[in-house]
Amino acid sequence: MATQRVLDFLASRRPAGPCLIVDLDVVAENFRAFEKALPQSKIYYAVKANPAPEILRLLARMGSSFDTASVAEIEMALDAGATAERISFGNTIKKERDIARAYELGIRLFAVDCVEEVEKIARAAPGAQVFCRVLTDGEGAEWPLSRKFGCVPTMAVDVLRHAASLGLDAYGVSFHVGSQQTDLSAWDRALGDAKKVFSTLAGEGIVLRMVNMGGGFPTRYLRDVPAAEVYGQAIFEALSKHFGNVIPETIIEPGRGMVGNAGVIKSEVVLISRKADNDNVRWVYLDIGKFGGLAETMDEAIRYPILTERDGDEKGACVLAGPTCDSADVMYEKSPYPLPLSLTIGDEVLIEGTGAYTTTYSAVAFNGFEPLRSYVI
Amino acid sequence: MATQRVLDFLASRRPAGPCLIVDLDVVAENFRAFEKALPQSKIYYAVKANPAPEILRLLARMGSSFDTASVAEIEMALDAGATAERISFGNTIKKERDIARAYELGIRLFAVDCVEEVEKIARAAPGAQVFCRVLTDGEGAEWPLSRKFGCVPTMAVDVLRHAASLGLDAYGVSFHVGSQQTDLSAWDRALGDAKKVFSTLAGEGIVLRMVNMGGGFPTRYLRDVPAAEVYGQAIFEALSKHFGNVIPETIIEPGRGMVGNAGVIKSEVVLISRKADNDNVRWVYLDIGKFGGLAETMDEAIRYPILTERDGDEKGACVLAGPTCDSADVMYEKSPYPLPLSLTIGDEVLIEGTGAYTTTYSAVAFNGFEPLRSYVI
Repeated sequence: MATQRVLDFLASRRPAGPCLIVDLDVVAENFRAFEKALPQSKIYYAVKANPAPEILRLLARMGSSFDTASVAEIEMALDAGATAERISFGNTIKKERDIARAYELGIRLFAVDCVEEVEKIARAAPGAQVFCRVLTDGEGAEWPLSRKFGCVPTMAVDVLRHAASLGLDAYGVSFHVGSQQTDLSAWDRALGDAKKVFSTLAGEGIVLRMVNMGGGFPTRYLRDVPAAEVYGQAIFEALSKHFGNVIPETIIEPGRGMVGNAGVIKSEVVLISRKADNDNVRWVYLDIGKFGGLAETMDEAIRYPILTERDGDEKGACVLAGPTCDSADVMYEKSPYPLPLSLTIGDEVLIEGTGAYTTTYSAVAFNGFEPLRSYVI
Repeated sequence: MATQRVLDFLASRRPAGPCLIVDLDVVAENFRAFEKALPQSKIYYAVKANPAPEILRLLARMGSSFDTASVAEIEMALDAGATAERISFGNTIKKERDIARAYELGIRLFAVDCVEEVEKIARAAPGAQVFCRVLTDGEGAEWPLSRKFGCVPTMAVDVLRHAASLGLDAYGVSFHVGSQQTDLSAWDRALGDAKKVFSTLAGEGIVLRMVNMGGGFPTRYLRDVPAAEVYGQAIFEALSKHFGNVIPETIIEPGRGMVGNAGVIKSEVVLISRKADNDNVRWVYLDIGKFGGLAETMDEAIRYPILTERDGDEKGACVLAGPTCDSADVMYEKSPYPLPLSLTIGDEVLIEGTGAYTTTYSAVAFNGFEPLRSYVI
C-alpha cells in the first residue's frame, strides 16, 4: 500500500524522525469508489479520522460532505471550502454552548441519542434537523464499539417524538456497525432496526426521511477485506429488503475507509534486544509507539502491516514496542509480530494503513517526544 | 486533595474548558517528605510525570536531580536550572544520535538494559557512567510494568561486564517496582536481585557503587497508601539486610509520588443519559476523557477520586466517559463509578490526584479538542 509517490517522497526528502505520509491520489480514489459503490448515498467524511487541511480541501472540491465531532472540526471543514449545509455535527455529546456556536456558523444537522441532548438542541439550534443514533451490537468489528453512543430502538422513538414536539425536524436515524466491520450482515440487522423506528413514528404522523449508516468501512490491514462495491451491493439489498419502494435518503460517514490505506508511517528501529539469553522472542523498539500515533494498537486491536528492507530474509517473532519510558507503550506482545531476523538497529520500517486515527491521536509531548508529523502529498 | 489554593484559583479565575491546576506547595511538601524519608538517597524527579517549567524550576531550586526520557526533557531540565551532572538519561531505548547530543550537553549518566545499548553509549558517550535495569515482577502495582524495560539479573552481569570492557564506568543497577506499588516487600525482592549482580561482578573486580530504586511511590487515589516515611523505613531495612555495612549510593526517581496529588483537573458534565428506559446505570459524559489527559484510566487501571458539588446527595452507579466520538473513550464501565443522583448537565467536577501523567499524555487534537491546559500555581 505504500504507493510509488510515497516511496519517491521518502527517497528524495528523507524526513528525519517518525512521520506519516498521506497520498492524496489514494484518498481521491477511495472517494470515487464510495461514490460508485453507493451512488444514492451522500458521503460525509469523518473529519476525526484525519483532519489534514489538504485532505479536507480535496474532499470538499470533490463534493464530499463532512461529519464533525466538535466546533473546531466544523471550522476546519468550513475553512476547507465546505458550506454549512454540507456539515453534520455528528457527536452525540455536545456542550450547549458548542451547539449554539455551530448554529451561528450555519450548521443545521445534529446527532442525538437521548432526550437530554434533544432539549439542548431545541434551545440552542431551534428548528434544526436531528437524527437519533441507535445502538447496534458491533459484532464482527475489529475495533468494537462499546455502548457509548446510541440508545435502543424503542427509546429512539421517544427521542425523535420529543424532538418533533419541541419544533425540531425529526429527520432520521443513524447507526454505526463498528469500525473495520467485515461482516456484511451487520448492515442488514441495523437497517432492520432503523425501519422499525421509521414505521412506529409514521403511525404517529412523524415521517422520518433519512438513514445515516455511519462508517465502519474497513481499510486493508493484514487481511483482505471486501471492496467498497461489495459493501455497496450488500447495503443496497438490505435497504430494498427493509424499506421496499420507499428507500430513504442515506448518508455514509467513512473515515478509516477514506484515508486509512492512503497513509504510511515511516519509522526507525531504535533498539533490538532480548531480556534473557534464552529468550526466543526479540524485543524491537521503534521510534513511534502507542503514544506517538499508534493508539489503535491498544489491546492489539489493529495489526498494521509492517515493511522492512529485509523482508526477503527469514523471519522470527518479535515483541514490538514504542520509544517511551512507559511500560504500556507496547504494540504487539500477546501476538508477537514476525520480523526479519536480519533486522538491525537504525533500519527504517514502513507501517502501512496508518492514514486514519494516527496524527490527532498522538500525545502532545509525552516523554518529551513531539507529536507525529505528517506530510500530505 | 484539592487544596484551598486550588479551590481559590478556580473560584476567582473561572477557567473555561477542562484544565489541570497544580499546587506547587504540595510538590514542595512531597519533595521534603522524600528527602526526610530517604535522607541517604538522591532524588531524581521523573520529568515525564509532569514537565511543567514551574515544577522543574521549583525542584531544581530545592536541589532535586532529574530523570529524563529524551533530549527534549534533558533540555527542559537544563532550562529549569539543573546542571548536567544532576541529570540522568534514564530511558533504556535511545537513538545513538540522541545519546551523542546528550553527551554534548554534558550528560554522563545513562540507563541500559542490553549490550546493544551499551555499544551505542560506548561510541557516542565514551567513558560515561551506565546503570543496568533489572527486570522485576511488578506484582502489587496498580499500573503494572510489562517486561518492556530491563533484563534478567544474570544478563545484567553480562551487560555491565561488557560496559566495563568498552571503557564505560559500570556504575550500578536499577529497577522499578511498578507504578503505585503498595506492597513494600517488592523493594526487598528487587534489592536482593541487585545485590546478586553486585556480588558476581565484585568477584571479577568490577565494583558497582549505585542502586537506582526507580519510582513506584504511590500518590493517594481512592485508597490510603503508606506514607513516604513508611516506604523509606522499609527500603532502609531491605538495604541493610542485603548490603550489610557496605550500603551503596542510592537514587530514587519519584514522578507520580512527587506531583500526582498536587494536581486537580476541573471538568464539566456535558451529558447524562441512559441507553434504555430500564437501564439502571446512567452514562455520565465529561469534557475530558482518555484522549484528553486521562489515558491512565486505560483498562480502568487508575481510579481517580471525583468530587462534585452534590456529594452529600444519594449516589448511584454511572459509566463515566469522555467527550470524543471514540467508543474507546470510556473511563469506567466494568466498575461503574458512584456519583450523586442529583448530578446535572453543566455541573463542574474535580478529578483529584491528576498531577502526573495527564497533560503530556493528552492527544494533540483528537476530534478537534485541544490538549489539556494546565495552570501551575
